[in-house]
Amino acid sequence: MKKIITISRQFGSGGRTIGKEVAEKLGIPCYDQELIQKISEETGLDGDYIKENGEYTVYRGWFANAFLARDERGLSTQDYIWLAQLQIIQQLADKESCVIVGRCADYILRDRPNVLKTFIHADTAWRADRIVRVYGETDETPEKRLKDKDERRKAYYQRYTDMEMGDAVNYHISLDSGVIGLEKCVDIICDLYNNMEDE
Amino acid sequence: MKKIITISRQFGSGGRTIGKEVAEKLGIPCYDQELIQKISEETGLDGDYIKENGEYTVYRGWFANAFLARDERGLSTQDYIWLAQLQIIQQLADKESCVIVGRCADYILRDRPNVLKTFIHADTAWRADRIVRVYGETDETPEKRLKDKDERRKAYYQRYTDMEMGDAVNYHISLDSGVIGLEKCVDIICDLYNNMEDE
Repeated sequence: MKKIITISRQFGSGGRTIGKEVAEKLGIPCYDQELIQKISEETGLDGDYIKENGEYTVYRGWFANAFLARDERGLSTQDYIWLAQLQIIQQLADKESCVIVGRCADYILRDRPNVLKTFIHADTAWRADRIVRVYGETDETPEKRLKDKDERRKAYYQRYTDMEMGDAVNYHISLDSGVIGLEKCVDIICDLYNNMEDE
Repeated sequence: MKKIITISRQFGSGGRTIGKEVAEKLGIPCYDQELIQKISEETGLDGDYIKENGEYTVYRGWFANAFLARDERGLSTQDYIWLAQLQIIQQLADKESCVIVGRCADYILRDRPNVLKTFIHADTAWRADRIVRVYGETDETPEKRLKDKDERRKAYYQRYTDMEMGDAVNYHISLDSGVIGLEKCVDIICDLYNNMEDE
């Protein structure tokens, strides 16, 4: 049976880095950017467009939203990306043990056994400091960037799933990477993954 | 510096058992029933009454609530218990390294360094099975008992703190004891506690 680790994360919490390091340690693939590439191939849409529309709600206001292009099934482009990523994530989980970062994989794979669902978070001050170091400065303050990303990810999650992002009961383990440290988070998740094998 | 582990938990999740085993392994005291005893001594109120009123809101309806006995400061008996447990938990944390189960200790000690805040949860089916085994049958179905306890604990938490119980960001680590297993939860928490010492 394939074993999957899903990593849901707050922006700037280091969840992506943790996912990569976990995958490397375990010798399994990590799907993050690679997932965007696959969705891009599947949908024919641009990678940057998918990055923005596959995890975040887009603020357009109700008027613009009402006039969003919809196909003959009544689906918006964002719905279309959702369906593509749903299918791709299920295919990946069928194919091989792996780490999947973000994109509601925890929800998409919720009924499957041998899925370790993780959530990585950290307080705003720690994340603000980290995003400036990792992603560089922008016109917006880091706090504003975090607030915007957090809200839009949460809204996206709520729109396409019936779960509340960040609600502890939705995950097998939730970790504060700022307090616990990225390396320790990696160790704990690898250990739990190895433990799954014994069942 | 004293090191404290707070264990917030869903009813039936095994959080109390985890707390006791963590304390035993680390050779530090675990405050659970002992806390009720202390609050009882401090307030002169009966232990069973404190158990019921120190962590759960009591459904009385607005009419009965409006006529609750209040002292000269306008405090109800529940407020009085809250103030006593707040003071006792702070004194305990000053005095010695320990494990504190429930009673909003995570909130009460939120600004103190060297506090490892944990949350233990599990899905309803697992907890329902466990409470029948551990606490025996009652007239109510286990599912109804869980729902009632969950809701009242959550409401109590919301009333006396400004935090949402079970919101992952409020804890350093949240664990699904049903999936991860009590023993593994104990190991992870002990490991994180020992790691705190190195800081």
